[in-house]
Amino acid sequence: KMLGRVLCTVLFVGAFPSPAEASQGHISVVLLGATGDLAKKYLWQGLFQLYMDQVSSGHSFTFHGAALAALEPGQRLMFDVLKKLSCPPDEAPNRCAVLKDQFLKLSQYHQLKTAENYTALSREIETLLRQEGLKEAGRIFYFSVPPFAYTEIARHINSSCRPPAGAWLRVVLEKPFGHDLQSAQQLAAELAGFFREEEMYRVDHYLGKQAVAHILPFRDQNRQFLDPIWNRHHVERVEVVLKETVDAKGRTSFYEQYGVIRDVLQNHLTEALMFLIMELPANVSSAHDVVQHKLQAFQSLWGLERSSAVLGQYQAYDGQVQEELQEARGYVSTTPTFAGVLIHSDSLRWEGVPFLLTSGKALDERVGYARVLFRNRAYCTQSGALRDAGHSQCKPKQIIFHFGHGALNTPAVLVSRNLFQPVMPKDSWKEAEARSDLQLFGQPLSDFYMYSPVKERDAYSVLISHIYHGRKDFFITTENLLASWAFWTPLLDSTSRQPPRLYPGGVENQHLLDFEMVSGGVAFTLAEPAQLLNPGGQTPSDFRAIHSKFRQSPLVSAWAEDLISQLASDVEEAAVRSVARSGQFHLALSGGSSPVVLFQRLARHHYGFPWKHTHVWLVDERCVPLTDSESNFLGLHRHLLQHVRVPYFNIHPMPVHLNRRLCVEEDGGAQLYAQDIAALVANASFDLVLLGVGTDGHTASLFPRSESGLDGAPTVVLTESPVKPHQRMSLSLPLINRARQVFVLVLGKGKHDITTLLSRVGHEPRKWPISGVSPSSGQLVWYVDYEALLG
Amino acid sequence: KMLGRVLCTVLFVGAFPSPAEASQGHISVVLLGATGDLAKKYLWQGLFQLYMDQVSSGHSFTFHGAALAALEPGQRLMFDVLKKLSCPPDEAPNRCAVLKDQFLKLSQYHQLKTAENYTALSREIETLLRQEGLKEAGRIFYFSVPPFAYTEIARHINSSCRPPAGAWLRVVLEKPFGHDLQSAQQLAAELAGFFREEEMYRVDHYLGKQAVAHILPFRDQNRQFLDPIWNRHHVERVEVVLKETVDAKGRTSFYEQYGVIRDVLQNHLTEALMFLIMELPANVSSAHDVVQHKLQAFQSLWGLERSSAVLGQYQAYDGQVQEELQEARGYVSTTPTFAGVLIHSDSLRWEGVPFLLTSGKALDERVGYARVLFRNRAYCTQSGALRDAGHSQCKPKQIIFHFGHGALNTPAVLVSRNLFQPVMPKDSWKEAEARSDLQLFGQPLSDFYMYSPVKERDAYSVLISHIYHGRKDFFITTENLLASWAFWTPLLDSTSRQPPRLYPGGVENQHLLDFEMVSGGVAFTLAEPAQLLNPGGQTPSDFRAIHSKFRQSPLVSAWAEDLISQLASDVEEAAVRSVARSGQFHLALSGGSSPVVLFQRLARHHYGFPWKHTHVWLVDERCVPLTDSESNFLGLHRHLLQHVRVPYFNIHPMPVHLNRRLCVEEDGGAQLYAQDIAALVANASFDLVLLGVGTDGHTASLFPRSESGLDGAPTVVLTESPVKPHQRMSLSLPLINRARQVFVLVLGKGKHDITTLLSRVGHEPRKWPISGVSPSSGQLVWYVDYEALLG
Repeated sequence: KMLGRVLCTVLFVGAFPSPAEASQGHISVVLLGATGDLAKKYLWQGLFQLYMDQVSSGHSFTFHGAALAALEPGQRLMFDVLKKLSCPPDEAPNRCAVLKDQFLKLSQYHQLKTAENYTALSREIETLLRQEGLKEAGRIFYFSVPPFAYTEIARHINSSCRPPAGAWLRVVLEKPFGHDLQSAQQLAAELAGFFREEEMYRVDHYLGKQAVAHILPFRDQNRQFLDPIWNRHHVERVEVVLKETVDAKGRTSFYEQYGVIRDVLQNHLTEALMFLIMELPANVSSAHDVVQHKLQAFQSLWGLERSSAVLGQYQAYDGQVQEELQEARGYVSTTPTFAGVLIHSDSLRWEGVPFLLTSGKALDERVGYARVLFRNRAYCTQSGALRDAGHSQCKPKQIIFHFGHGALNTPAVLVSRNLFQPVMPKDSWKEAEARSDLQLFGQPLSDFYMYSPVKERDAYSVLISHIYHGRKDFFITTENLLASWAFWTPLLDSTSRQPPRLYPGGVENQHLLDFEMVSGGVAFTLAEPAQLLNPGGQTPSDFRAIHSKFRQSPLVSAWAEDLISQLASDVEEAAVRSVARSGQFHLALSGGSSPVVLFQRLARHHYGFPWKHTHVWLVDERCVPLTDSESNFLGLHRHLLQHVRVPYFNIHPMPVHLNRRLCVEEDGGAQLYAQDIAALVANASFDLVLLGVGTDGHTASLFPRSESGLDGAPTVVLTESPVKPHQRMSLSLPLINRARQVFVLVLGKGKHDITTLLSRVGHEPRKWPISGVSPSSGQLVWYVDYEALLG
Repeated sequence: KMLGRVLCTVLFVGAFPSPAEASQGHISVVLLGATGDLAKKYLWQGLFQLYMDQVSSGHSFTFHGAALAALEPGQRLMFDVLKKLSCPPDEAPNRCAVLKDQFLKLSQYHQLKTAENYTALSREIETLLRQEGLKEAGRIFYFSVPPFAYTEIARHINSSCRPPAGAWLRVVLEKPFGHDLQSAQQLAAELAGFFREEEMYRVDHYLGKQAVAHILPFRDQNRQFLDPIWNRHHVERVEVVLKETVDAKGRTSFYEQYGVIRDVLQNHLTEALMFLIMELPANVSSAHDVVQHKLQAFQSLWGLERSSAVLGQYQAYDGQVQEELQEARGYVSTTPTFAGVLIHSDSLRWEGVPFLLTSGKALDERVGYARVLFRNRAYCTQSGALRDAGHSQCKPKQIIFHFGHGALNTPAVLVSRNLFQPVMPKDSWKEAEARSDLQLFGQPLSDFYMYSPVKERDAYSVLISHIYHGRKDFFITTENLLASWAFWTPLLDSTSRQPPRLYPGGVENQHLLDFEMVSGGVAFTLAEPAQLLNPGGQTPSDFRAIHSKFRQSPLVSAWAEDLISQLASDVEEAAVRSVARSGQFHLALSGGSSPVVLFQRLARHHYGFPWKHTHVWLVDERCVPLTDSESNFLGLHRHLLQHVRVPYFNIHPMPVHLNRRLCVEEDGGAQLYAQDIAALVANASFDLVLLGVGTDGHTASLFPRSESGLDGAPTVVLTESPVKPHQRMSLSLPLINRARQVFVLVLGKGKHDITTLLSRVGHEPRKWPISGVSPSSGQLVWYVDYEALLG
C-alpha cells in the first residue's frame, strides 16, 4: 500500500515519468544483505545514484532491502543507512532532496529467510504492479551475502521469485566465487542449476573502476599509435600493482582462508592484465568478443609454478589471527599477505615479455596501477644534461592506467610525452593540470599527457548502472572465472605449504620485498634475513632431494616440481658436456604425459641449452600420423620443439607413416630409423635416453611378453601395445642399453605400486621390460618423485 | 763512429748494462717519418719511454730517425723534436737528464730514399755491432708514413735491410690499412710479399688505451660475476662511442677520402666492441686464441645494410673541403662526419642485443667509452623515493669502460654498485675517489665502483713497449683486419651515394643526431629539418621504385636493396592476407643466390610475419642430400628457417633422398611431393610462388627444351639441368600457374640480357621456360632491379 502511494506521488510531481513514459516497465531491485558492510558503504549509494540517473528513463523502480533480521530491527538498520545517502556535488540540492525523499519511499525492508518469504515478496511485487497498471520489466537480485548462503538464496529465487514471462531476471553475485578451480566449478555448477548464464552478473568491482574500464577503449581509440608498439619488440614489461597500507586486522577470519592471491590477484589484477594483453577485438564493446579474446589470452599463459611467485606476510599477522580466530599462541599461518608473481605468455605478441602482478597489505603506500613500460630504442647523441631536456626519446616511455590513491589520488591515464598524444573521449576524460611537485616512477608529471575523469564515479555506481543497462561485458562470465581459477590454482596448490617471507610493514619493509626475475621465475633480491624469521616456527625445507640407490642405480627423489627441475638441470649438464666432447648431443625422448613438465621446464628455464647442436630422437611412437593428437612426436613438438631452436635436420621423428600407411612391415620404417641412427649416432650409442615406466612395468613401447625388442640386436622394432593405439614403434632394449646415460622418470601416486614392485625384483625384462634397462657401459639414474616412491 | 762513443759512455756510466748483462743483444729502432706529426706528438716520446723502461733490460739500443729530407735539415728537424722529450713526473730529474742525454746520443737521422740508403743503414748497424762486439737481437721499423709509400719502403727493407739470421724483424704499420676490403686485401697481399705475418705489427692505438686494453682482462678476472649475466638475457644493449668536439678542419684532404666510418668505426670502435662480445678464450693472453675468438665474433655478425646506419655531416664541412681542396663553390661532399651504426650478432649469447657504435666530429663533448647496459630484472616494491635510495636493484646497472676525456677526464672502469664489486689488478688499477659533483649517464658517481689506472700511460708508449716485448695480441693481424673490412665494406658501398644529415655542430645539434632502432635498422628520431638541407644541393632520392609493366604484368623496379625491402613487405602482406582468409599461407620458395637477401630480410626485419601459420614448400631442388651444401633446402634453412619459428610439420623439403638414393624414378619422390601438395594445399593452388630467372631463361628447375614439366598436368617432375648437379626435382609450370600469386625476382647486371630478351618475346616456354609463367587466375608480379633492367 505504501508503494502505491509513492508511485502516485512520483507521477504527481510531474518532473517524473508520465504513465506513457513509464511504459518501459517497472524494475524491482532486491538487495540481499541490505544491512551489511558492502551495502552500507557502496551499494545503497549506487542504487540511489541509479535512481537519480534513471528516474526519467521511462522505467519505474522499487528497491527492496532484504536480510535475515526480522522486519522491525532490519527496517530500522536499513533506514539508518538510507538516511545518510548523499547526492553528487553537481546535483541541485533541491532536486537532490526531492529525489532522496522519493528513493526512501520507494525502498522497503523484507526479511528473506524461508521459501514463503520469497513467495510473499514476489506476490507483493506482482500485486503492486497490477494495482499501478505497470508491466514488469525485470528484477535485479543483488547478492551481498557470504558465499555459503548463495545456493539457498539462488534456489528460492529460482523457484519462488522469478519474474513472469517477458520480464528479465538479473542476479548479481559478489566474490568470492570459490576458493580454487574445483570449488569454483562446483559453485558454478550449482548456480547453473538455477540461473541461465545471461542472468548472472558476477561483480569484480575493478571492472567498474574508471581507469580499468578505460583500458580497452583506450587501446581501441589509439590503435594507430599502439599497433606498432604493443608487442614484445617494444614493451619491456607490464606491471599490475595494488599496494595497500592497511593490514588484515578485523578481517582475518576471511583473510586467513583466502590470502592475497585469492583476494586480489586472481580477480582484480588478472582482469586488468587481461585487458592489457588480450588481442583487441574489432568491436571492443561486444561482450561476446571481449570474453572470447580474454579466454584466448588465458590460454596463451604459461602455467604458474612455485618459482613464479614470491610471497610475504606482515609480521603482526600471526598475532592478529591468534587473537581474532582464537588460535593457540604458537599458531603459524602460511597465508600470504604479499605476493609478486611473474606471468609469461606464449603468444606471438608477448613472448618473452614479463608481466608482473604485485599486491600486498601493510606496505608503504596505498596505490593501484597498471603500467606498460616500453624499451628504450633510442640513442641520444647529446651528453647527459642535454639528453634529458625536453621530451627526449631516451627518457623512459610508459603508459599508466592509474586506478586511484597514491600521490595522484585520482583515477588517471598517463602517456609519456615522448610516446604520443593519446586520443581520449572528451566527454568523460579531461586533461589534468600538470602538478609540478609530483613525480611518477622517477619522472615529473610534466613528462606525461595526463587525463582524469571529468566526473569521478564510484566503481559500484558504475557497475549498478551497467547491470541496469544489461552490459554484461563489465562482469565475469563463468568461462572467464573458471579460466582464471584454472590459471591460479596450480600456484595456490604448490605454494600452500610454503612459509612466506615475514616483513615488518610500512616503510620499514625497505628493500625486503623487492624481487627479481631469475631463470624463468622470481626470487626476493635480498637473502632471507634470519632475524625476521619467526623464531618459534619451523621452516619446512623446500627441497629435500633424496640421493640414494634404487635397483643398484643412483636415485634422485623429491616432490615432483623439484624433481623435474633437478632432472632438467641434469639433462642440460649432460648436453653441455656432450657438446664439449663431441660437438653433438644425441637425445632420445619418450612420449606420454610425465615428460611434458620436463619439456616445458627445458623450454622455459634453460636458455643456455645447446639446442643448435642437439639431435632429438624418439624412444617410441604410436602408429598414427605425426600430426595426430595421439602422436608422441606431436606432444614433443608442442611442448618442446616449437619453443626452442633445434635445426630441422636434427629432428628425427619415427617414420611410422610411409607410403600413406602406418607401420606396415614391408615399408621398413623401423629399419629406416635404425639406419638413420647408425648413420648419425656414433656407435649407435645415444648420449642420453629418457624413459618412463608404465604401471605394467613397460618402458618405451616395450610391453611385457613382447615378441620383439626385449633382446637380440640393438635395433628399432614394431610392437603391440595392450592399449590403443595398439601398433607402436620402439627402440629395442639392447639399443637403449648402448646409451651413455639413461634417465628414468617416474611421477605420481599411480606409479607407487610398480615402483615398490621394481624395488624388489631382479632382471626380468619379459615380465617387466623396465627391469631390463641396464646400460652396458653407460649410467642409469632413476628420478622418482615422493608420491611414486612413498605412496 | 759517434755511436761507438755513445755505447762506450753507456757502459762507462755503470748504472747501465755491463757487457754480460747486455748479452740479450742489440735492438735497432728505425722510425720512418721521423719528423712527421705522429712522430712529433707521440712516437719519439714513446721510444724515449721504452729506453727509460728497458735501459737495464740487457738490451742495448740505437734509434734511427728516417725521412726523405736530406741529412742536414732532417737532422735539425728531428733533434728539435728530441730536445722537447719529457720524463714522467715520477722519474728522478737527475736520472731523467742523464737518460735523455744518452737517448739523444743513441739517436741518429738518416735520409732513406733509395735502395742504397737502406743498404747503407743496414751496413752501418752491422759495422757498429761488430765494433762493439754486440750480437744483434732485432730491428724495429716503424712506418709513420702515408700509405702510398708502404710498398716501396717494405720492398727496400725486405731486400736491403733485414737483420741477419737469428735476429728478428718487426715492422710497425700505422693506419689506414686500405680503404675498403679490396684495397686492404691488395695492400695485405703486397706486404705479404715482403714480410711474414709474425713480423708485422699493425697499430690500432685504441688497443694501447688502458681502458680498452683492460676489457679482456676484466672479463677474465670477473668471470664469476659476468658468466651468468654476459648474455642476451641480461644485457639490454652495448654502446661503443667516440665523440669529438673538433672538426676536420686542416685534415680534409685525408678526411674527405675516409670519413668517420673508415677513420674511427672500422678500427677503434670495432676493436673495442669485439673485446666486449667475443667468446672469452680460456687464456686471454694467448694472442692466437684471442684472434681466433675475435674472428668467430666477426662471423656471427649480421651483414650491414644501408638501414644499419645513420650518417651526418657538420654544416661547415663542405666549405672547409672547398677551401682546403680547392673545390668549386658548389661542391657537395657526401663524406659522413657522424655515424650511428646498429650491429647485431647471431650468436646464442647475443642474439637480439643491439650493439650501437657512434662517433662524430663537431659534437657537444669529447668523450670515448664502451658501455654495457643491463636490463632491469627487478621489481622494487617501495614507492619512488625509497626505491631510489641506496643501491636498489631498480637503478640502472651498467659496466663502463671509459676511454678518457669527458667529465671524468681519465681512463676508468666503472661498475654499478648494484651489480658487483669487480676484481681489479691492484698494481695497475686503483679505486678512484668518489666525486660527488659528477654524474654519468644520469647517475651520481657514488652509484659506481670506479677504478682508474695507477699510472696513466699514453697509448703509443704502451704499444711501443708491446712491440719491444713481441706481444702481438695488441696488434691487428691480417685476418683480423680483413674480417673487419669485410664487415664494413658493404655499408660503405651502400651509403656512398647517400647524403648525410647536416648538423650545425656542438650543443646546437640538440636532438638532431638522436636516432632510434626501427625494424632491424636505425633512423634519426627527428624528421629531416628542411631548413638545414643544403639549399643548393640536390637530394638524390633513396627509393625510386618504378611501378609499371613488364610482359603485361606489374613491374616493381629499384636498386637491389630497396627492391628486396619492397618484395619482403609484399610477401608479408600476402602472408597476412592469406592467414586472415584461410588460416594458412602456402609459400613455395626457389633456391639459388638471389633469394638469400630476401630470406635474410624476412628473418631480420619482419617480426610480425605469421610464420606459425605458414607452410614452406620448395619450388625446386637439386638431387643431393638435404644436408649437402648444394641443397636448396639447406640454403633455405640456413638463411631463413633456422631464424624463424615455422612449425616442423609446415616445412616441406622435396623428397629427393629416398631409400638412401637420390631422385630414382621408382622411389616416387616427385609423386610423393605432389600428393603432399594435394593433401595440404587447397586446390593445389599455392598462395605465393617465388621464382627466379636463369640467364638461359630457365625458372624453377625447368630448363629450355625440358622433356617434362613445361606442359601437361599440374604436378611435380624430375628434370635435367645443363649444369651440375644435373638431376633436379621441380614444380611443373602448370602447377606454378595455379598459384594465387607468383613473384619473379631478377637481380644483377648478369641478368640484363635475358631481361631485355624477355621484354620482347611472347609465350615460348620451350625456349624460355620463364615465359610460360602465367597464372591462370592468379597474379604475376616482376621484381627486377635497376641493374638487371637497365644494365
